[in-house]
Amino acid sequence: MRIGLDAMGGDQAPQEEVLGALDARAILDPDDRIVLVGREADIVPHLPEDGSWRQWVEVRHAEDTIAMDAKPVEALRSKPGSSIAVLAQMHRDGEIDACISAGNTGACAAAAQMRLRRLRGVHRPGIAVIAPTFHGPVSVCDVGANVNCRPQHLHQYGVMASIYANAVCHIEDPRVALLSIGAEDAKGNELVKGTHQLMKDDPRLRFVGNIEGRDLFRGVCDVLVCEGFVGNVVLKLMEGMAEGIVTSMLGALASELPSHAEAIRTASTTIARKYDFNEYGGAPLLGVAGIWIICHGASNHYGIMNAIRVAKDFAAHQVNQQIVEALSPD
Amino acid sequence: MRIGLDAMGGDQAPQEEVLGALDARAILDPDDRIVLVGREADIVPHLPEDGSWRQWVEVRHAEDTIAMDAKPVEALRSKPGSSIAVLAQMHRDGEIDACISAGNTGACAAAAQMRLRRLRGVHRPGIAVIAPTFHGPVSVCDVGANVNCRPQHLHQYGVMASIYANAVCHIEDPRVALLSIGAEDAKGNELVKGTHQLMKDDPRLRFVGNIEGRDLFRGVCDVLVCEGFVGNVVLKLMEGMAEGIVTSMLGALASELPSHAEAIRTASTTIARKYDFNEYGGAPLLGVAGIWIICHGASNHYGIMNAIRVAKDFAAHQVNQQIVEALSPD
Repeated sequence: MRIGLDAMGGDQAPQEEVLGALDARAILDPDDRIVLVGREADIVPHLPEDGSWRQWVEVRHAEDTIAMDAKPVEALRSKPGSSIAVLAQMHRDGEIDACISAGNTGACAAAAQMRLRRLRGVHRPGIAVIAPTFHGPVSVCDVGANVNCRPQHLHQYGVMASIYANAVCHIEDPRVALLSIGAEDAKGNELVKGTHQLMKDDPRLRFVGNIEGRDLFRGVCDVLVCEGFVGNVVLKLMEGMAEGIVTSMLGALASELPSHAEAIRTASTTIARKYDFNEYGGAPLLGVAGIWIICHGASNHYGIMNAIRVAKDFAAHQVNQQIVEALSPD
Repeated sequence: MRIGLDAMGGDQAPQEEVLGALDARAILDPDDRIVLVGREADIVPHLPEDGSWRQWVEVRHAEDTIAMDAKPVEALRSKPGSSIAVLAQMHRDGEIDACISAGNTGACAAAAQMRLRRLRGVHRPGIAVIAPTFHGPVSVCDVGANVNCRPQHLHQYGVMASIYANAVCHIEDPRVALLSIGAEDAKGNELVKGTHQLMKDDPRLRFVGNIEGRDLFRGVCDVLVCEGFVGNVVLKLMEGMAEGIVTSMLGALASELPSHAEAIRTASTTIARKYDFNEYGGAPLLGVAGIWIICHGASNHYGIMNAIRVAKDFAAHQVNQQIVEALSPD
């Protein structure tokens, strides 16, 4: 397959993007190609001089970039030559089979939705992030594509994220939970109550009911469904809190055990790895007729390589075909 | 003042409740009284035999209890003799000046709203929890009283929680932020956009704009406004995650430094204290004509004593009078 990679997205672009593309050789099949999209003059200096990379990497020039804080739709309209807009157009034209970007998340979601059709039967695409917990990965959907949800949308997020969790995390028959403010069926807002009923009535879903925020860390589900506003808050809260607790804990330990700085660093690396968003590389926009993997802005080359792995798993397990079979009306 | 304390609420009732009431002597004024409400036969065995407690503690018998997982409104209707229903009635009748309970949160919120009027000018009461962060306490409002919010409600939560943060956390002119999915004014759902405008236009609020989930741990605000569903998810997520990370970290450290178990425990206690919900004891339901402090179900005697302190600060700083002055229409 041909995977388009936004060389200009992310806080450390293009270096980490180019390194990730180079590292990816280890996980690519012989016919696979990575197409780095971005300013050629910025990309080329990071590629090995011997030209060996030409066996699996191509460079496609795109003059413009979209800033991380730009307004998505405006930026896409005013910059058709930006790396994100070019990626979307290439995917639409069939030049590439997947897009990966660590750039402006809103612009990625907008470009995918403007340029790629929705899969048949899908009401709204949703972003599924694999959250590291202490009891294995949980696919959380949606984390920000759709802040205007109806029960039908959330129900479909459960179906799509189950297929995705099976494909990428290799979880057989994933347990699907609905995020609420109490485990009881009757708790929550109108959106949650409506969704609960739809999920309960769907025999294809292994629905385990409503869960509270704290249960996310108790290994009770493999897929967590929520609307995009809540999901985005949850995701960023987890990130900020993990950072805060670990920093705080290291400080307290350093003053208790000044002579064991090395062992403390080792232990915290062990934890950090369990909790590293780079492990799963990126989050797909589920429901579009194509593959678009959105990476964290702070992704390093390891995260980028893992996003390439996610794109490959996504294609190999025919996630989109499975979604169409599950959701198309006939 | 006379403070009613639900002796039957909480996971460790009545023991921790009674101990908390006894400990509270240190922070009470000479005229203050704690009225323990619950089954007399269960309460009395925890009181010192010498009767010294009679100087500041009274016992009011209430036959029934409401289970932690009971449906709030149904339970209150079917059990008028439950400790929570009796507390609410006593407050309404002027027999006590404040209620404290670590029992069923929904039942507390419902009892307070059914029995106590709303303060003049208040649209909807909201629960304000003081979240421990690594940069000082942040008052988060609402965390679950109102899952059907309008911009006007959220705006008032900002006003009420500012008054509360000033009274209880002693923060001069607190910085108020609105929880959203991006710092830009234009991001968020319709509720957030509407609220943003109202807050921006209110010169009495020190509004610092929208923040993301991760910013809660970066010391950028003293008050965080959100609707009850999101706030409840945030609160429980923080709790579950803190527990998970600390446990995970201690495990990793124990295997790195088996001979320093003691120092590791000391360091983790330091962290745990910074992150202990017992430090602020309880969360008031802001906006009702009375004082109702809702405690965490797992509160220990220290948490209960601190809830008593919160009730006293609330009264001493005339939080309700300040709210009426700020929000009443004329």
